Amino acid sequence: MIKLGENSYGKNAVQLSKIIRHPDHHEFRQITVNVSLKGDFETAHTLGDNTKILPTDTQKNTVYALAKEHFTTSIEAFALHLAEHFVHTQQQVATATVEIAETAWSRITPHAYISGGAEKRTTQVIYNAATTTITSGITDLLILKTTDSGFEHFIKDPYTTLKETSDRIFATQCEASWIYKGAIKDYSVLFDNIRATLLATFAGHNSLSVQQTLFAMGEAVLETYPAVKEITLKMPNKHHVLFNLEQFGMSNQNEVFIATDEPYGYIVGTVIRE
Amino acid sequence: MIKLGENSYGKNAVQLSKIIRHPDHHEFRQITVNVSLKGDFETAHTLGDNTKILPTDTQKNTVYALAKEHFTTSIEAFALHLAEHFVHTQQQVATATVEIAETAWSRITPHAYISGGAEKRTTQVIYNAATTTITSGITDLLILKTTDSGFEHFIKDPYTTLKETSDRIFATQCEASWIYKGAIKDYSVLFDNIRATLLATFAGHNSLSVQQTLFAMGEAVLETYPAVKEITLKMPNKHHVLFNLEQFGMSNQNEVFIATDEPYGYIVGTVIRE
Amino acid sequence: MIKLGENSYGKNAVQLSKIIRHPDHHEFRQITVNVSLKGDFETAHTLGDNTKILPTDTQKNTVYALAKEHFTTSIEAFALHLAEHFVHTQQQVATATVEIAETAWSRITPHAYISGGAEKRTTQVIYNAATTTITSGITDLLILKTTDSGFEHFIKDPYTTLKETSDRIFATQCEASWIYKGAIKDYSVLFDNIRATLLATFAGHNSLSVQQTLFAMGEAVLETYPAVKEITLKMPNKHHVLFNLEQFGMSNQNEVFIATDEPYGYIVGTVIRE
Amino acid sequence: MIKLGENSYGKNAVQLSKIIRHPDHHEFRQITVNVSLKGDFETAHTLGDNTKILPTDTQKNTVYALAKEHFTTSIEAFALHLAEHFVHTQQQVATATVEIAETAWSRITPHAYISGGAEKRTTQVIYNAATTTITSGITDLLILKTTDSGFEHFIKDPYTTLKETSDRIFATQCEASWIYKGAIKDYSVLFDNIRATLLATFAGHNSLSVQQTLFAMGEAVLETYPAVKEITLKMPNKHHVLFNLEQFGMSNQNEVFIATDEPYGYIVGTVIRE
Repeated sequence: MIKLGENSYGKNAVQLSKIIRHPDHHEFRQITVNVSLKGDFETAHTLGDNTKILPTDTQKNTVYALAKEHFTTSIEAFALHLAEHFVHTQQQVATATVEIAETAWSRITPHAYISGGAEKRTTQVIYNAATTTITSGITDLLILKTTDSGFEHFIKDPYTTLKETSDRIFATQCEASWIYKGAIKDYSVLFDNIRATLLATFAGHNSLSVQQTLFAMGEAVLETYPAVKEITLKMPNKHHVLFNLEQFGMSNQNEVFIATDEPYGYIVGTVIRE
Repeated sequence: MIKLGENSYGKNAVQLSKIIRHPDHHEFRQITVNVSLKGDFETAHTLGDNTKILPTDTQKNTVYALAKEHFTTSIEAFALHLAEHFVHTQQQVATATVEIAETAWSRITPHAYISGGAEKRTTQVIYNAATTTITSGITDLLILKTTDSGFEHFIKDPYTTLKETSDRIFATQCEASWIYKGAIKDYSVLFDNIRATLLATFAGHNSLSVQQTLFAMGEAVLETYPAVKEITLKMPNKHHVLFNLEQFGMSNQNEVFIATDEPYGYIVGTVIRE
Repeated sequence: MIKLGENSYGKNAVQLSKIIRHPDHHEFRQITVNVSLKGDFETAHTLGDNTKILPTDTQKNTVYALAKEHFTTSIEAFALHLAEHFVHTQQQVATATVEIAETAWSRITPHAYISGGAEKRTTQVIYNAATTTITSGITDLLILKTTDSGFEHFIKDPYTTLKETSDRIFATQCEASWIYKGAIKDYSVLFDNIRATLLATFAGHNSLSVQQTLFAMGEAVLETYPAVKEITLKMPNKHHVLFNLEQFGMSNQNEVFIATDEPYGYIVGTVIRE
Repeated sequence: MIKLGENSYGKNAVQLSKIIRHPDHHEFRQITVNVSLKGDFETAHTLGDNTKILPTDTQKNTVYALAKEHFTTSIEAFALHLAEHFVHTQQQVATATVEIAETAWSRITPHAYISGGAEKRTTQVIYNAATTTITSGITDLLILKTTDSGFEHFIKDPYTTLKETSDRIFATQCEASWIYKGAIKDYSVLFDNIRATLLATFAGHNSLSVQQTLFAMGEAVLETYPAVKEITLKMPNKHHVLFNLEQFGMSNQNEVFIATDEPYGYIVGTVIRE
């Protein structure tokens, strides 16, 4: 028998900006919101019965409407409010997932801002009657070090051409996401601290491989922040390849590199507590 | 205790093109390959011990080297060969995942080609000692119908502004992926047939919702192709919004639309056998 | 003295789709429109005087409103109508430039369509009291040939490492734009013919260099179509680099290539009449 | 008679990174280089004669090779050196244009860096026997102000729906480019100063329109820096549209906005000396 398996629907890429007015300055916030609902939607698929479908257009309107009163502090608090709203007001909805990515802006005067770059602060809240899971993180954290990174003693096989090196550029577009245990008093302060720990560990680590640095970064977060249950790091290796100057009778002592986007090494790991 | 959880590493975005020479014409193939390995890599993370690490650079070289003899038919066959190679030659590797996306080219003369568009044929092969899972599919299948699509009788709540309609544009950038059971004689013929079934069902369906059309497409594939175990469809709803011409004293009888990219409805569903 | 030099303003990226209903099928058209106005806007810049400024929001509305009656045939005819509208109704506007890019859709049933790929048909109409210039073309025409292309006898200098070859892949994402002289009866028929000539010349040419093929393509268009005054071709060379299989004891007789996006050769040329 | 008109060729998107080692820290530089040559290339086009063609592959090698000794200070100095090299060593080359865009990195320790965002510092050097033109600038300078911006007293016509406002968000992805007169002692210091002037003027200006702010920014640069001959600013208006909360019985006093990418107003202007 052919039947419906796992399914969900929602609205993605709801672009919202908000001005929060403080006495002496404006706070400018810009977020992208994804909403996804799971529940009793079988007849919508099999019969075209829409009577249990809250349109994605309405979901979008809801994001804007609730932002006025409820997007005042962290993206985690707003995502949780949205997820609860959909589950509490729609009885056919069993689970609501709300993802928010916040764009960084640096304030340069009380009312003017410059982009904080591609880096985004993220959260994903999964809410149902039984459990609430809050996973927060960073995407597009583009970081690089010009030394204190090597890669040696690896396997050689018939297709090996890579040379061992004790000194190379280590560049990555890091994505980190960590799961919180229990309620957190101030998500934004904690985010800032975790981000600082990730950066300091990356910068200070004497790296023997991407894997080793990845683990060190995750370990540092778990050691420092008891509220973090586990952390996953994705670290594409954005290779900077030494250009062969010797062919022109010149030396290249880690000076001139070809910066490449593709192909890229892709290292993923989770650090957990046990 | 803090320790390593799930982890993997590999090379992504290996861009490979190949000319296969036939007596009267050339076959031009262009693929992007991702390799990902799981296995005994704990000391690489915790100690910086690289003696069990096959570099991602070597993985890349292997893709090019094996393509000469082994990329001669379907992407499924080549992905399987690559995955087996890594597991069989590297005893620390438990599972190899190889993903291949193939770019479409239309031949216009024996040796000249024009792009077949953004659509890509895809496969993912997961191989380990116990099981082989082959999931094939399509991404970026951009399809649209100008009628035979409506959306009515949905839930209204305080945030509803969407109007019911029995005639709207239905446009989607469909991603389909299906899992095969058992060995397949000719993956390429089967792919062409499944793609044709998906297109015909989309075009012919009298759609009451994206969900209903999604289910009909999946059901048609499972009904027609016993070799398909289950299929997942992701159908972002690329909204074409009626422009309000009435405000200028004109009528707009489903003629002029604003084509939007964001936000978009996102409908995902799996159709299974039971 | 500091003063205002050349300036313009307008609305870009107006995304419009239209259904044109024929007795037995629907015609689906999708375009992106850019409007740019030049004229007497000095006090807007120097004094903040907006009394001569037609807002870009109004320009956008105008595109949608005029599409109902006037976007019924070619993009050239609609662009010309829009450009005339802005110059004729706004006396402070001296010159209006309207650019339209049309997305290709292939009809598969009377009311269903599949994407025609990244290729776009384009036009730019520059209109003022004195002259009308219509430049039409194609962008993102992704074409490739697997043989009949070489590159030899070029200059060698101390930084040369490229090897001569009489047989290579020639791939390009061609952009062509041609200026029409006088009025054209049917822009769409002419576009189809010019596109066919470009493709046939590319496919049939025994290429000694990108430059030579570029010139041959332009020459063929000027020879065949008296209505074309001149044509400019931009042909980035999307290199497919032979992978070095010899280092693994294998031969590579133009079989396996690295497909690269960057860096790319960039060849631009105009072919004119004199 | 059909003949070759204007033409050029070169290598684009040469991705280069360099470590410059100072006693107490590393300086990390990352640039993208485009080279374009004009000269006596007619027979290359008409006859396939490559004897006057310096391959774009060699141009690329030259960029890497010359970077070792000559990319030590500003991108302007390196671009000029490259342009001179091609004209002086290749007698068939009349004019060389070298464009460099530099990616911003912020140093966080002596050897570790974090991305400085999408903003890029740019230069274009056009060099031939007669003249040298150096145009420098910024791209992707993403700036925003939450107040001190309005748009009123504009033209109303039958297609007007925009409401006048004395308080709106003003956001733009500014591109600025200025032409230098004569030789400059330190391009990098001057760049930093001009950038600071642009930011301060944007932040401090009481804007009646994008045009007025654009002119004020250009005027401030010309007034402050005699070495700048003229400046062109491109300021797409990244609209933040007030979301209609009134339809849900709520007020929206410039609080909640829809952030849009398309369509966008596009304002371009040059400020000159006379």
